[in-house]
Amino acid sequence: MQTGDGSKPGSRLDQWLGSYAARTRGMTASEIRALFAVASRPEVVSLAGGMPNLAALPMDVVGKALSTLVATNGPVALQYGSGQGDPELRRRILDVMAPNRVNAHPDDIVVTTGSQQALDLVTRIFVDPGDVILAEAPSYVGALGVFRSYQADVQHVAMDAEGLIPEALQDKLIALKRAGRRAKLLYTVPNHHNPGGVTLSAERRPRILEIAQRFGVLVLEDDPYGLLGFDGDPLPSIHSYDPDGVIYLGSFSKTFAPGFRVGWAVAPHAVREKLVLASESAILCPSSFSQMAVTSYLENHDWKHQVGVFRELYRERRDAMLQALHDMLPTSSWTNPQGGFYVWVKVPEGLDTKAMLPRAVTARVAYVPGTAFYADGQGRDHMRLSYCYPSPERIREGVRRLAAVIDEELDVQTTFGATPRPDRSGPLVESPGPDLT
Amino acid sequence: MQTGDGSKPGSRLDQWLGSYAARTRGMTASEIRALFAVASRPEVVSLAGGMPNLAALPMDVVGKALSTLVATNGPVALQYGSGQGDPELRRRILDVMAPNRVNAHPDDIVVTTGSQQALDLVTRIFVDPGDVILAEAPSYVGALGVFRSYQADVQHVAMDAEGLIPEALQDKLIALKRAGRRAKLLYTVPNHHNPGGVTLSAERRPRILEIAQRFGVLVLEDDPYGLLGFDGDPLPSIHSYDPDGVIYLGSFSKTFAPGFRVGWAVAPHAVREKLVLASESAILCPSSFSQMAVTSYLENHDWKHQVGVFRELYRERRDAMLQALHDMLPTSSWTNPQGGFYVWVKVPEGLDTKAMLPRAVTARVAYVPGTAFYADGQGRDHMRLSYCYPSPERIREGVRRLAAVIDEELDVQTTFGATPRPDRSGPLVESPGPDLT
Repeated sequence: MQTGDGSKPGSRLDQWLGSYAARTRGMTASEIRALFAVASRPEVVSLAGGMPNLAALPMDVVGKALSTLVATNGPVALQYGSGQGDPELRRRILDVMAPNRVNAHPDDIVVTTGSQQALDLVTRIFVDPGDVILAEAPSYVGALGVFRSYQADVQHVAMDAEGLIPEALQDKLIALKRAGRRAKLLYTVPNHHNPGGVTLSAERRPRILEIAQRFGVLVLEDDPYGLLGFDGDPLPSIHSYDPDGVIYLGSFSKTFAPGFRVGWAVAPHAVREKLVLASESAILCPSSFSQMAVTSYLENHDWKHQVGVFRELYRERRDAMLQALHDMLPTSSWTNPQGGFYVWVKVPEGLDTKAMLPRAVTARVAYVPGTAFYADGQGRDHMRLSYCYPSPERIREGVRRLAAVIDEELDVQTTFGATPRPDRSGPLVESPGPDLT
Repeated sequence: MQTGDGSKPGSRLDQWLGSYAARTRGMTASEIRALFAVASRPEVVSLAGGMPNLAALPMDVVGKALSTLVATNGPVALQYGSGQGDPELRRRILDVMAPNRVNAHPDDIVVTTGSQQALDLVTRIFVDPGDVILAEAPSYVGALGVFRSYQADVQHVAMDAEGLIPEALQDKLIALKRAGRRAKLLYTVPNHHNPGGVTLSAERRPRILEIAQRFGVLVLEDDPYGLLGFDGDPLPSIHSYDPDGVIYLGSFSKTFAPGFRVGWAVAPHAVREKLVLASESAILCPSSFSQMAVTSYLENHDWKHQVGVFRELYRERRDAMLQALHDMLPTSSWTNPQGGFYVWVKVPEGLDTKAMLPRAVTARVAYVPGTAFYADGQGRDHMRLSYCYPSPERIREGVRRLAAVIDEELDVQTTFGATPRPDRSGPLVESPGPDLT
C-alpha cells in the first residue's frame, strides 16, 4: 500500500515525523548509548553501570518461595490486582522503611514498577511544561530523563560533602521568586547520592525541608540506598520531619533484586490518590506476581541479615575503589562515599570526560561522564565510577586502565601547550569547597 | 512544622492543590469506583470485570517452570534488563502473533508492563494536549483514561455488527480536515471488541487502513483478544496490510496470565525507537523475571493447546450468557460476540444504566454502565456484560437478577407515565442499524 504522500513504506524514513508530540523532541538516544553496547563486552571493566551485585542472594530460597507461592496462591498471584498495590506488601514495606524512620500507614503507600515509575508518576501529576524542578548538582540521570520528558525546567542546586547546601537552595528559591517563578518540586537523593556519593547531614535535613515548605515546594525524597550505609544507623529521612511536605520513594532493587521491578512511593493523602489514578492509567496495576514474590521473600528469609551481607560486599568494593584511586589517580580528587554504589571523581583541569570516553573504552574501561548528571551541559570535568558490580581485583584493574588513559590525556595536553593544573578542591561545588579526597 | 501559608499539616486538606499539573485535573476517580468495592463481595454476581478465568491454568507447570528459572538463570532473571525487552521473549512473541498474521522482526517489538503501558507510551510520544484521537463508539475504558490523561480530544466513530464503519471514519476525517484539524491516531480493537463484542470484518480491514493512511493517521491496533475467537481462524490483523501504518499491541494477560504484566507493541522502526526511550524514562526496563517467566511458560508448555482450553471455557460462558439474555431480557437487544469476554447490551428506551447501577448492586448483580466507554457522556442506554469469569450457572443467575431490576425500572416508568418502547435496533449505531440480537 502507498502512503498518502506517496512515500514508500518499508523505508527507514520516518513517515510519522510530523506526528510526534512536542515532548518527544526531548527524547533522544544518549550519544554514549552506542558506546555502552561496546562497554558491556566482558574484556571491558565497567565502572559505569549501577547494577546491584546479586551474587550474594540465596537463589535456592528465592526459587523455593516462588514455587510455593504459585502452589498456594497461584490464581491470585497470576491475576490482576489493586492499582495501589498488594495490601500485604504495603504492610511489610513499613518494616523496610522503619530504619529510615519513615512513619506511614499502608494506605499511604503506592507500589510502583520500580521507583523509576514513581518518579514518572509524580512528575506526571505535578509538572506542566516549563515548570521548575530543583535538583542537586549533579543529579540522578534517570530522574533528569523523566523531568526532561515532561518538559520541566530543571535547575541545579549546589552540594558539598554534607549534601545539598541549604543556603544555595534558599538563594535559588529567592532568585526564582524575584523572577516571578516558583519551583514545583525539589528532587533530592539524601542518602549515598547517585552520582555524588555523599549523604545529606542530619543537621541539614530539617533545614532543607523548612526552606522548601516556606516556598511551597514539595520535596521528592528518592531513597534507594538508604539501607546501604556502611557505618552506623541510617539518618532519619526528610519525610520523618513532616510527612505532608514530602513524597518518599523506596525500592527493592538495591536491597533485594531489580528484576521484579518493585518500588514504592509514600505520599500525603490527596497526592497518593492522584498517584494511584495516574498509575492505573499507565499500567492498570503493578504485577501481582512480582509483589507477592517480594512479600514471600520478606516473609521467608531474614532479609535484614541479607541487607547486611550486601552492605559488607559493597563496603569491600568501596574500599578497593578508594584505595585504587588513592594509589593511581594522584591528579584527580573524589568524594568519600559512606554507602551506596558510587564515587564522583573530578579529573584534572582541562580534561573532558565525555570526549575521553571513547579512548577509555578502547583501553577497556568504562565510566559515565559527568555531563549525564546535569540538565545544563555541566560536568565535563567529572565522572561517575561505580564499585557495586565488579570484584575488588577488577575494580583495581579498571582504575589502573583509567589512570593510564588520564595520564595519556595529560601528556597530550602538555605537548600541545596547555598546562594541566591538578585541582583538589571539592568536586561537588564550583566555588572552592572542602577537600573531599 | 508549619507550612508556609500557615495551614495545618496532617489535616486532610490538600496543601498541594495549587501545584498539580493541568493534566491532573482530568484524573478523577470514577463515580462507580466506590460501588465496585461493594460489587466485589462474593454474594454479588459480577458481570462487570474483565478478569480472565485462570482456573484452567496448570499451576504445577507454572510453579515448576519458575523454580527452574531461578535455579538455572536466577542472576539474570533478578537483574535489570534491556529497556526494549528480553530478546528471547521478543523472538517467541513472533510465534504468538503468527495466527493474526503480524509479520515482524524481534527488533520491531517493545515489551511493556501489560499492553496498558504500551497505550500510555504511544499516547505519550504522539499526543499533545488538544490533539484528536479517533476511537470506536464505544471504546475500551482503559484507553479512554490514558487519552484523557494526555488531554487528547477523543472523537468517536460509529461501529455496527461488522466493526468500525469505513464511511463513518472517512466522513469524520473529512469533517476534521474542513475544520482545519487532523487526527493523530485511530485507536481500534478489531477483534472481539471491548466493550462492543463485535469483530471488524475482513473486507473492512484494508479499507480502514487505506482511509487512515490517506489522511496521515497512524492506526493503533489493540489486539488482546485476537487468539480468543470461538470459530475458525483469526482474521489477518490490520498490521498485516502495512506494518508502516500501524502500531500493533498484544498481551499475555488474556492468553496466559495478567499477573506478570507482560504486553508488547510492534511499531515502525523510528516509532519503536521513541517507544523504547519513553519506556526507559517511565520504568527503566520491564521486569526481567516476568519476561523470563513468560518465555519459560511458552517453552515448556503447549501454550497453543492452553489457548484452546481457554477458548472452550469462554465459549461455554458466552453461550450461557446469550441463552440467559434470550430467555430473560426480551425487552433488550445485544451483540453476538464470536470471541473475547463481552456482550454489549442495549436496554429499553428511557432506562439509564448509570442511574440503575446502585439498584442492580443492591439486587446483587453488577455490570459496567455504557457511559464508561465514551469520552462524551453517551452510553446511558447501554451496559457491558462480561461472561469471562463467573460460572455458567452464576451468569444465568446474574442475568436473572438483572432482568428483575430492569423490569422494576420499566414498571416505575410505566407508573410515572413514560412509555417504554422496546427498541431492538442495532445497539452500536445511533441511527437504525442491523438487528444484532
